[in-house]
Amino acid sequence: MPEFRQNMVSKEWVIIATERAKRPDQFLQKKEEKKSTPPHREDCPFCPGNESKTPASLFSIEKNGAWTLRVVPNKFAALQSHLTTERKHEGRFLKADGFGIAEVIIETPYHNRTIATMDPEEVKNTVMAYKERYIALSKIGQIDLITIFRNYGEKAGTSLEHPHSQIIATPIVPPHVRNPLYQSQLACDAFGDCIYCGMMDEERRQQARVVEETRYFIVLCPFASRSPFETRIYPKIHHSSFTSISDEELMEFASVLQDTLKRLCVGLNDPDYNYIIRSAPVEDSDVKYHHWYAVIVPKLTTPAGFEIGTGIYINATLPEQCAEFLRGVAIQ
Amino acid sequence: MPEFRQNMVSKEWVIIATERAKRPDQFLQKKEEKKSTPPHREDCPFCPGNESKTPASLFSIEKNGAWTLRVVPNKFAALQSHLTTERKHEGRFLKADGFGIAEVIIETPYHNRTIATMDPEEVKNTVMAYKERYIALSKIGQIDLITIFRNYGEKAGTSLEHPHSQIIATPIVPPHVRNPLYQSQLACDAFGDCIYCGMMDEERRQQARVVEETRYFIVLCPFASRSPFETRIYPKIHHSSFTSISDEELMEFASVLQDTLKRLCVGLNDPDYNYIIRSAPVEDSDVKYHHWYAVIVPKLTTPAGFEIGTGIYINATLPEQCAEFLRGVAIQ
Repeated sequence: MPEFRQNMVSKEWVIIATERAKRPDQFLQKKEEKKSTPPHREDCPFCPGNESKTPASLFSIEKNGAWTLRVVPNKFAALQSHLTTERKHEGRFLKADGFGIAEVIIETPYHNRTIATMDPEEVKNTVMAYKERYIALSKIGQIDLITIFRNYGEKAGTSLEHPHSQIIATPIVPPHVRNPLYQSQLACDAFGDCIYCGMMDEERRQQARVVEETRYFIVLCPFASRSPFETRIYPKIHHSSFTSISDEELMEFASVLQDTLKRLCVGLNDPDYNYIIRSAPVEDSDVKYHHWYAVIVPKLTTPAGFEIGTGIYINATLPEQCAEFLRGVAIQ
Repeated sequence: MPEFRQNMVSKEWVIIATERAKRPDQFLQKKEEKKSTPPHREDCPFCPGNESKTPASLFSIEKNGAWTLRVVPNKFAALQSHLTTERKHEGRFLKADGFGIAEVIIETPYHNRTIATMDPEEVKNTVMAYKERYIALSKIGQIDLITIFRNYGEKAGTSLEHPHSQIIATPIVPPHVRNPLYQSQLACDAFGDCIYCGMMDEERRQQARVVEETRYFIVLCPFASRSPFETRIYPKIHHSSFTSISDEELMEFASVLQDTLKRLCVGLNDPDYNYIIRSAPVEDSDVKYHHWYAVIVPKLTTPAGFEIGTGIYINATLPEQCAEFLRGVAIQ
């Protein structure tokens, strides 16, 4: 029987379409070509030796005299840092100069690695760079939203193959972010505590959607997953901002993130994916009602007219089966 | 200079990323294979002769003893009509049985036609069927949202090639629909009139984004277009529900819809697209604050992590240039 399920925070609904249900293993990708990617490409602007093709590093980590990670301004930034945040009218329409900051985290010198296949040290450096840059950007007065994300593969919208993440900092908090924040505020006003913490308690009680639980993190396929194998990583200790986590938590986050992506890579044969770290806006960085988390969205299906029109996603796979499948993947 | 632009109704923002700007003609599709699609396929469940492969017609239009359009229940419906709408708790989570109705409009007996290449009579029949089924579904007590949409091509999420549209009727109005409705309510409370009517006045004054204006409709690329060539068709006479339009308006809608899709097909070499008719929820079908419209979203780019995380779409093309390009396409 199909069912509607509601996202506890955003209040958006999904349809779990059991009549069209697919087994998790039906999402296995065909990606033979990946295996032939070389560790270095002359024409890749992110490969060592081509540093002049990118702007100068804002942050880097070195080992034995060579960089192992670089953060650089995005050369093709959608936003620019020298503009104002002033709102203007064009007739009845509202607009603003495209002020903002866009950076690229080049995660490794090796062109053909992925988070799933990297040295664990490289993943640790990557999340350390996330925190470092997040803190630096949040000190810029006009910035109010900092989004860290990673697009992996063509279906996930990336054009550059070399392993990298991105950060975009904007002066604007859009309704897409503000609406769920308002819902979690209302919930906190009503119940006195964080709705995400309550959700985690419930997931821990039900267990069916939990992929892994470590000392500081819980990995799960959400009750109202919008697409097959949507997977979220929640910190167990309440922090509204990603930057509030301790170094010990951060290092565990690196290994949990890598393990989760390994499960997806091994279990589904290296699917394309986006992941996003959803942290509170800078002004709300220490609040009871928000809880940061990472969401991984493998690109296994195509949202169509119904999803665009209603925001109700039709998901043909049970999150419980996805979690069970991921738990069973051998990653060591 | 890049700029933020706000959708006047939803209050969501887009970034018009002029630094990465592409000219409209850079979105020309490579689609040679389309030309070889036959007018009839033995193995297509929607082709004449295979009527037994679909459920019986709910509505049909015939000519010379053969059907030219059929509406059938969706055999692989994501929702089912025999369930209840009762909400249930699963621990702290909220869910409901998957009650709802899903229908398919088989627009023509010809397998290889598209809205752009159909006989105008077929497009008229299609929009007549939309209205007919919308009215029938809105009389079912538990239904509150009726979404008419069309997925064209693989990138738009369709698996069946035969020309068809879909209708999904749900008992639930999700926040994705309710939030903009609330905004248009607030605007109507503040200014006393329909924000969409005001937006059309402004577009008519500025002219830059208008593709075509007819007696009853205005076609435009919205100020805050989320992706290249997003195009909307607004009725000039205020109606909150699609079903309130007169037969005369409906017939003009068919020809405006076809002309707009012809412009996209000829101008961009037959891109995949989704279109959606956004009509008010059934309970709000005669209100001052909502205004129905059709939105066409050609699938020319891939939303990535930033879009998923923030709802802020980065659009590398000026809506003004897209409108100019579409105006210049010869379609007769």
